[in-house]
Amino acid sequence: MSLYFEDLTPGLRFTSRAVRMSVEGIIGFARDYDPQPFHTDPEAAVESFFGGLAASGWHTAATTMRLMVESVPIAGGLIGAGVEIAWTRPVRPGDELVAVSEVMELKPLRSKPDRGMAVVRIETRDGAGEAVQVITCKMVVPRRPV
Amino acid sequence: MSLYFEDLTPGLRFTSRAVRMSVEGIIGFARDYDPQPFHTDPEAAVESFFGGLAASGWHTAATTMRLMVESVPIAGGLIGAGVEIAWTRPVRPGDELVAVSEVMELKPLRSKPDRGMAVVRIETRDGAGEAVQVITCKMVVPRRPV
Repeated sequence: MSLYFEDLTPGLRFTSRAVRMSVEGIIGFARDYDPQPFHTDPEAAVESFFGGLAASGWHTAATTMRLMVESVPIAGGLIGAGVEIAWTRPVRPGDELVAVSEVMELKPLRSKPDRGMAVVRIETRDGAGEAVQVITCKMVVPRRPV
Repeated sequence: MSLYFEDLTPGLRFTSRAVRMSVEGIIGFARDYDPQPFHTDPEAAVESFFGGLAASGWHTAATTMRLMVESVPIAGGLIGAGVEIAWTRPVRPGDELVAVSEVMELKPLRSKPDRGMAVVRIETRDGAGEAVQVITCKMVVPRRPV
């Protein structure tokens, strides 16, 4: 199934599988991209702002993208022009993340008749159903070829 | 050197080292977090929206975070409450990325006398000096202990 701009309606929702965040995964990502003690060192993290090891927000964001690629079947793929991200709770080892993506708004582009812009809100939830991250994304979506 | 909220002023800038984006690095990140043909398959990418292999925006964002950790010496580390990201140009294999971070605005937090909020704009530039990504970030910055 591939969805074109014409197939989208506000309120349409996609729910991903769950993915578990491990200590090793959290530390591995942080060593490459966000090497700060509260993301790389469980002992040092206790004394930090987070009070214990927490995933880099960029790890949560990248993991969310993976879940979206698997669960949001836009024709031609997921192409974001820009996003807003709020990190609402720390992500901890053992958290099982699920991404729930919802179409909020659809904007035809007058200058580009072959595509439209969709505003999609992606809530990433932990196992307790609490939001750990909220993304609002402007996505480029192709129109159905005639 | 560790900078506290009192040490920051609007206009203060930090420039990172350059990091080169390789074909292998682009494909490796995308396989883990953004497995779409325009990020993982140089041949298939030619026919895509991007017209050739391009780094995942999340790879550019994570790489930028790495460069910020190395170049922006905030006391206690870099802790973001939220960001806006615009991806302004595709990042290609061979691009050398530099992150230029600039303090834009400083907001004391009345309810939290031990910290403040700094709005920081991070422009990630390619080797030609063109912006490939612009992040506006709200950062939590501790006040200098008395």
